[in-house]
Amino acid sequence: MAPPTNGRPARAHPSVTSTSTTSPGPVRIALDLLGGDDAPAVVVDGAVRACAADPDLRLLLVGSVGLLDEAVRAFPASAHGRLTLRPARGAVGMADAPSRGSRADTSVRGAVNAVVEGVADAVVSAGASGASVTAAALGLGRLPGVRRPALAATLPAAAGSLVLLDVGGSLDHSPATLLRHAQLGAAYAAAVRPDVPPRVGLLSIGVEPGKGDRSRRLAAVALAKAPLPAGAGYVGLVEGHEVGLGSRANVVVTDGFTGNILLKGVEGAYAMAGAPHPAPAAAPLLGVNGVVVVCHGAADGADIASGIALAAALARDGVVARLTSLLPEPVEATG
Amino acid sequence: MAPPTNGRPARAHPSVTSTSTTSPGPVRIALDLLGGDDAPAVVVDGAVRACAADPDLRLLLVGSVGLLDEAVRAFPASAHGRLTLRPARGAVGMADAPSRGSRADTSVRGAVNAVVEGVADAVVSAGASGASVTAAALGLGRLPGVRRPALAATLPAAAGSLVLLDVGGSLDHSPATLLRHAQLGAAYAAAVRPDVPPRVGLLSIGVEPGKGDRSRRLAAVALAKAPLPAGAGYVGLVEGHEVGLGSRANVVVTDGFTGNILLKGVEGAYAMAGAPHPAPAAAPLLGVNGVVVVCHGAADGADIASGIALAAALARDGVVARLTSLLPEPVEATG
Repeated sequence: MAPPTNGRPARAHPSVTSTSTTSPGPVRIALDLLGGDDAPAVVVDGAVRACAADPDLRLLLVGSVGLLDEAVRAFPASAHGRLTLRPARGAVGMADAPSRGSRADTSVRGAVNAVVEGVADAVVSAGASGASVTAAALGLGRLPGVRRPALAATLPAAAGSLVLLDVGGSLDHSPATLLRHAQLGAAYAAAVRPDVPPRVGLLSIGVEPGKGDRSRRLAAVALAKAPLPAGAGYVGLVEGHEVGLGSRANVVVTDGFTGNILLKGVEGAYAMAGAPHPAPAAAPLLGVNGVVVVCHGAADGADIASGIALAAALARDGVVARLTSLLPEPVEATG
Repeated sequence: MAPPTNGRPARAHPSVTSTSTTSPGPVRIALDLLGGDDAPAVVVDGAVRACAADPDLRLLLVGSVGLLDEAVRAFPASAHGRLTLRPARGAVGMADAPSRGSRADTSVRGAVNAVVEGVADAVVSAGASGASVTAAALGLGRLPGVRRPALAATLPAAAGSLVLLDVGGSLDHSPATLLRHAQLGAAYAAAVRPDVPPRVGLLSIGVEPGKGDRSRRLAAVALAKAPLPAGAGYVGLVEGHEVGLGSRANVVVTDGFTGNILLKGVEGAYAMAGAPHPAPAAAPLLGVNGVVVVCHGAADGADIASGIALAAALARDGVVARLTSLLPEPVEATG
């Protein structure tokens, strides 16, 4: 999720757990110190907040040489024993190509590698989302049948919370990707909220069958026939306001272009309405074999702390293993 | 704009004129009695309200035989002299193909034909927008260089009002269409608000050059070079929250799929925030040679009245002629 350049909507900072239960116990988060508009300052600020809030949290700070000592000094001395440091050559800038996330010397790739090596349980980055997706897909691998990982935002809605995906993991709107994202979203919703059966809706510009572009029409046909995890049901096409209402669907599937614009439009509307924005400042990346949380590029310290808390909760709950076990067998790609 | 099937966001009913000046004097609106989820009842209700609010308004009611008398009886006898009736065979349903709007016996085509024949000054319909676009394009013709007419919603924003287009006129996202819609949007903004220079932004998922899909990348290059009307400037890529902020752009261009979902997402967010929704219940169709206002399929009587008032204001102000005179010469289509 790329950052706004000016005028940031006000954002509330609710406690982040969209998970139903959070196991206590140590958890190790690899944190990309260099990602985000105001990195490293706000990232370090968020890390300090997260450490204060969670005594079992351990952090692996990945950043460039020359700022590691300063980052450590921002923490109280009592927390120093919970910190590990890893040098990286540089960040991936917002204007860089996403493929830069594949380079081993970037901070986001360093954070991913820490999970691959087993020295961290999850990754948090507020850097360019394209680079985070690339680094995560290359480093951790993708789940079966997943061509494009998806960023999944959990939003409050009048009828309860709702998972919107993809909000910017990729620009692919092929029917095969929309279908797999629907399955990923339903599996994620069931993994974090086992008590609520997923109701999957496909975002379009009308609810009558056939509304939308060719991709939606094909995806709708595929979704009506495809297996959905955890007793999920497909409710059909839904429109943009469903993201605020949640009356028909609690998992809303769209492509990353539309989803990112919709999510940010909802942010802007809350700002315009004068309401604090309850939308998430962090979204998990679904479809990779590990916990990766991507924070808003314009994240502030509280947002980063929320992202760390979300990553910690997902790692402690073993959400990736649960999601993977729920995910249906991939079907042959059709579009 | 297709209707929600359940749970309609609350909507405020501001006075509709986005126009700066409204000339008094008679104006004749052709009203599609059969379009909309709750037609004809809410359409007739809106017509009665509009007549009461505007003593110089005359209405041409287009509907099926058997309901015309009842429609007239809904008006006070003192208003009967301002009504004309025209029978039509039927409506275009939300689930019908948009091409049905081309049939001469539909109510929306009947309303368009009244303008073509010179017996009405503008069309208002809450029917399926695809059919309204088809009927309008075939009946009235398109302005030079316009392949796809665009629905333009005027939204309140923190920094002033903002024109978002296309919100559902077509699904075309070609660079040529995005460019022409940018010119149409800027010309419309200048025609209705001559005191405010248009600042045109292209909606994408980041503000850095190159962000977005191939269509946006090509459209951004074209927009940076193309003539814009009325001293308008191109400000570059903008993100979804710009629609609430309006800080960089007051004309935001996107394809009709994304724009429709964004507009309805903003509606849902207002509903979720508990704020009355200030977004428009009616949008003019830009790029056809006449005034056509499309109301939300879920419009209530007050929405219809707002749409009629908007159409009356646009017709009285001669906005189509002003827009046409401002529109740059079309360039050869490139995508």
